[in-house]
Amino acid sequence: MSGILYGVGLGPGAPDLLTLRAARLIEGAKVIAYPALEDGASFARAIAAGLIPAGAREIVMPVPMTTERAPAQAAYDRGAADIAAALEAGEDVVCLCEGDPFFYGSFMYLFARLAPRFEVIVVPGVTSIAAVAASAGKPLVARNERLTVLPGPLSEAELTERIAGAESVAIMKVGRHLPKIRRVIEALGLTDRATYVERASLPQEVVLPLSEAPEAAPYFSMILLTKGADPWL
Amino acid sequence: MSGILYGVGLGPGAPDLLTLRAARLIEGAKVIAYPALEDGASFARAIAAGLIPAGAREIVMPVPMTTERAPAQAAYDRGAADIAAALEAGEDVVCLCEGDPFFYGSFMYLFARLAPRFEVIVVPGVTSIAAVAASAGKPLVARNERLTVLPGPLSEAELTERIAGAESVAIMKVGRHLPKIRRVIEALGLTDRATYVERASLPQEVVLPLSEAPEAAPYFSMILLTKGADPWL
Repeated sequence: MSGILYGVGLGPGAPDLLTLRAARLIEGAKVIAYPALEDGASFARAIAAGLIPAGAREIVMPVPMTTERAPAQAAYDRGAADIAAALEAGEDVVCLCEGDPFFYGSFMYLFARLAPRFEVIVVPGVTSIAAVAASAGKPLVARNERLTVLPGPLSEAELTERIAGAESVAIMKVGRHLPKIRRVIEALGLTDRATYVERASLPQEVVLPLSEAPEAAPYFSMILLTKGADPWL
Repeated sequence: MSGILYGVGLGPGAPDLLTLRAARLIEGAKVIAYPALEDGASFARAIAAGLIPAGAREIVMPVPMTTERAPAQAAYDRGAADIAAALEAGEDVVCLCEGDPFFYGSFMYLFARLAPRFEVIVVPGVTSIAAVAASAGKPLVARNERLTVLPGPLSEAELTERIAGAESVAIMKVGRHLPKIRRVIEALGLTDRATYVERASLPQEVVLPLSEAPEAAPYFSMILLTKGADPWL
């Protein structure tokens, strides 16, 4: 009997924004896997650190941070092989995933490799979008409104086109793309509807109107474009 | 000193998909508020039932299910007044919210009424989208992909236009709009990318390819349009 792979969403970063199901799985895990930077630092592991059993074996997957796809693909090939070996030995593996596993999560790379051969159970997590909206005090969508989620690396032309046709918008992975995104929003006359949030739910959280956002943004930053409260009165 | 209003996301329905923070707040609550149907039945209360302290006072907000706005607005006016009375008396109030409070959640109607006068803290929850993707085993978005969230009640023309220009799509509130949505997806040639999910995370959960979906869908049903696994290999 092969083991089961659990892809466990950890939420946006605050350890108490894990779900009860995620906490129970991590606390009972014998084998834990997670992505890390090349120096071994892992945001996923840090979120779950208080719950990882002392005796658990840890499969660390160092993933190069690069826009080239081949090095990351090779890293996921290696991680999937390590996890597959544990599953084949009959061990369950709990894979830690920042946010939600299927929402811009690296778990989908493991899922694509392993789901054809093994049972995989995904535990959904709180997305960064929900955390950012909560921190900003900005309701996202109600009734028959649309929500558009855009990655910051899109081109200026594409961001402009997508935002112009949208209602509420969440822009992910802002980081070094902040000046470009700011130009797009300013040109569309939407700056007064835009909120900048970095590291939502963490002690270092920053929430600012976009007009007051810093020049340099970390990778874990987002911009929300929302309506005011009036539509909901 | 006025009390604090907590808008607490409960996730999609499974009681163990609450966050640790939500569980702690509910377990410690002296006053709990939640929306209900006109007969008093409340999905939100049912999700949290195992955590509500025996002695907690409950503020029930019956909300008429109608497409007219005025009756619902009047119901939220009354609920906000009841909650305000508790806050003014110095009591904290934990408001139970299905899913995430700011993602198609009725909490935003209370937020609009009460946030100008009281401290309001929102606890984000697992959205139905994340739960549906997990149940379906369908990764939503990765890298520089876009996600479009559309409500099923939109017109056939608007759904067609929005889906045609989209990458991954989540269609909410499918319910009685299923035949229309099916026509749109069929006309766009996307049926083989479409998954139908009802009551994600609950024991009665149903996951089917759209081509095999029932004729009649409950309100809590969604359709996902996703790519296959190949892009992530």
